Amino acid sequence: MSAPSTVLDGAGTTSAAEVLRRCRELVRPALAAAVGELHPWTGEMAAFSLGWRDADGTPAPDASEGKGVRQALAVLGAEAAGAHGSVAVPGAVAVELIHTFSLLHDDVMDGDATRRRRETVWKAYGTGPAVLAGDALFALAVQTLAETPTAATGAAVRQLSTTLTELVRGQAEDLSFEARPWTGPDAVRPEEYRSMAERKTGALLGCATALGALLGGASTETVTALDRAGRHLGLAFQAVDDLLGIWGDPSVTGKPVHSDLRNRKKTHPVLTALATDDRASRELAALLHSPTPLDDQSLLHASRLIDESGGRAAVLDETREQLAAAHACLHDVPLSPVTARELETLMGFLLHRTV
Amino acid sequence: MSAPSTVLDGAGTTSAAEVLRRCRELVRPALAAAVGELHPWTGEMAAFSLGWRDADGTPAPDASEGKGVRQALAVLGAEAAGAHGSVAVPGAVAVELIHTFSLLHDDVMDGDATRRRRETVWKAYGTGPAVLAGDALFALAVQTLAETPTAATGAAVRQLSTTLTELVRGQAEDLSFEARPWTGPDAVRPEEYRSMAERKTGALLGCATALGALLGGASTETVTALDRAGRHLGLAFQAVDDLLGIWGDPSVTGKPVHSDLRNRKKTHPVLTALATDDRASRELAALLHSPTPLDDQSLLHASRLIDESGGRAAVLDETREQLAAAHACLHDVPLSPVTARELETLMGFLLHRTV
Repeated sequence: MSAPSTVLDGAGTTSAAEVLRRCRELVRPALAAAVGELHPWTGEMAAFSLGWRDADGTPAPDASEGKGVRQALAVLGAEAAGAHGSVAVPGAVAVELIHTFSLLHDDVMDGDATRRRRETVWKAYGTGPAVLAGDALFALAVQTLAETPTAATGAAVRQLSTTLTELVRGQAEDLSFEARPWTGPDAVRPEEYRSMAERKTGALLGCATALGALLGGASTETVTALDRAGRHLGLAFQAVDDLLGIWGDPSVTGKPVHSDLRNRKKTHPVLTALATDDRASRELAALLHSPTPLDDQSLLHASRLIDESGGRAAVLDETREQLAAAHACLHDVPLSPVTARELETLMGFLLHRTV
Repeated sequence: MSAPSTVLDGAGTTSAAEVLRRCRELVRPALAAAVGELHPWTGEMAAFSLGWRDADGTPAPDASEGKGVRQALAVLGAEAAGAHGSVAVPGAVAVELIHTFSLLHDDVMDGDATRRRRETVWKAYGTGPAVLAGDALFALAVQTLAETPTAATGAAVRQLSTTLTELVRGQAEDLSFEARPWTGPDAVRPEEYRSMAERKTGALLGCATALGALLGGASTETVTALDRAGRHLGLAFQAVDDLLGIWGDPSVTGKPVHSDLRNRKKTHPVLTALATDDRASRELAALLHSPTPLDDQSLLHASRLIDESGGRAAVLDETREQLAAAHACLHDVPLSPVTARELETLMGFLLHRTV
């Protein structure tokens, strides 16, 4: 699994789905118990956003539930360190709650009305209640971890709290990119974009794996290596997301074709294309500077210009490089071989989306 | 200062102001350093909401800054335990950041456009940015405390995280009261209101004093007593707030006359009046059930009906009882006598508002 050429071929898909299911089943009772401690109103919104129930109270279809990537990474982090996956459960619950908090608040900030083909929480319950539910999840995550009586709790809480400030800073950077110009000295540089993506997406994936390892009693070297592996995975994941945002099949992504371009979102492929400053990228910049909404034909043309300027190839390379780096981190430290393979399988599976 | 009759006479006002100033000066460098670590955009909103600068970047007048009650309680908590106030600084920074977070998000949820005679953050910067800034303050508070290298850090983080879930639950309860009826079996009972107020207002004041004591190396008994003292103070504070919301002088409160009645807010005096179910309270219920906005004359009449049903006297009693209970907590455990007096002076000062 370590060769980049196998990255996107879907090998090991079945067993990755099994790993995710196994970890969800291990974590679910504690996650449900934590959510059950919330005020009934915020608990209802939390259950809705976790995909457990619809806004009218009926159980939601299974497809509404997230894959539970972060909780799985926490469980595998502990198992990689040779511990039983159950020791990672408080960490798994914390990262899953934080992930849900961030989706909830990000949807308010971005004004996104749908997620996983359902209404977002602010759309279904209102903006104020969605802010409240996010706050409740945030507080619950910190409390769940802080009240876990282990020798590693102090370090685990520090790891989580650092991640939280990174996560919020990543969101601040992402939102502030909107006001920056497409070209010129104030344009967002691809390195700035990568740094934002590491904070916004990578930090929590790294935290998940690191928390599992910490609670599993791993050495500092192993914790750090697993944190870095998760961060590289996050960067690869964001790169795939950015490719799908431009070239993804709407029937698979659930979003309109060229959605990121339509919303003039400053993502990696566009920024990389613009940074080349060739003929195609200058034409692309002119299109993006146009004050009117881009029609379907212009969007298709813009996507081709990004391709022509090398934006697509560069980000596909980035995906492969980040995944290879994640794998390399796993080889840097002694890990349970079975779990290391499961981690690699899971990583490959997460990136195997139609690009 | 321990006799209830001296509660609202303003005795010790000058020295309370001095205590607040001394504590603000002790905490300010660390608070400013923490805020300085934020992303510049969220840092700008944080400085605005702390009253340090206006939205255009100019320094705000001194009057915009809060009194810093929570940071002072943290410093006094440590000094009461015989430690130097400086050991409480990380706790003081954390509670002040959490207080600012909660104002910021509560203003979004309540739709309040002004606070301390200035625009609220969502009004000045937008809802999404205000949610982001609140999240950043929340994360920064947890990180500041979690990264403080002391023997008490684990207990301090647990204390803070429990308070955070209480705080959010209190806000959930307060918001959910809005949908409850004024009368009948589903009406909000005065005990429910008190429980909400303890979570929403008391928990953070208790946490402030307790964190100071914890970081000052106090015994569990002392920490618990100071936590309880802060909670009683919070309940007294909320009771005064509720009295001012109905009978406060607009030139002092900065809010319209009868503002809580105008907004049909379910506060302690109204709920207590309605619970008596006498002639005046039934007339009050009829007024509150009226589908049209209440004019000035009806509002004045409603306020008199609350008085007649004993709602005002009961809440004034509540204020005195809670303050006496706070003082009693301070006498339950051995504290530095000078600091205990400063705490009592501060408590009296905080409740000395025009009621």
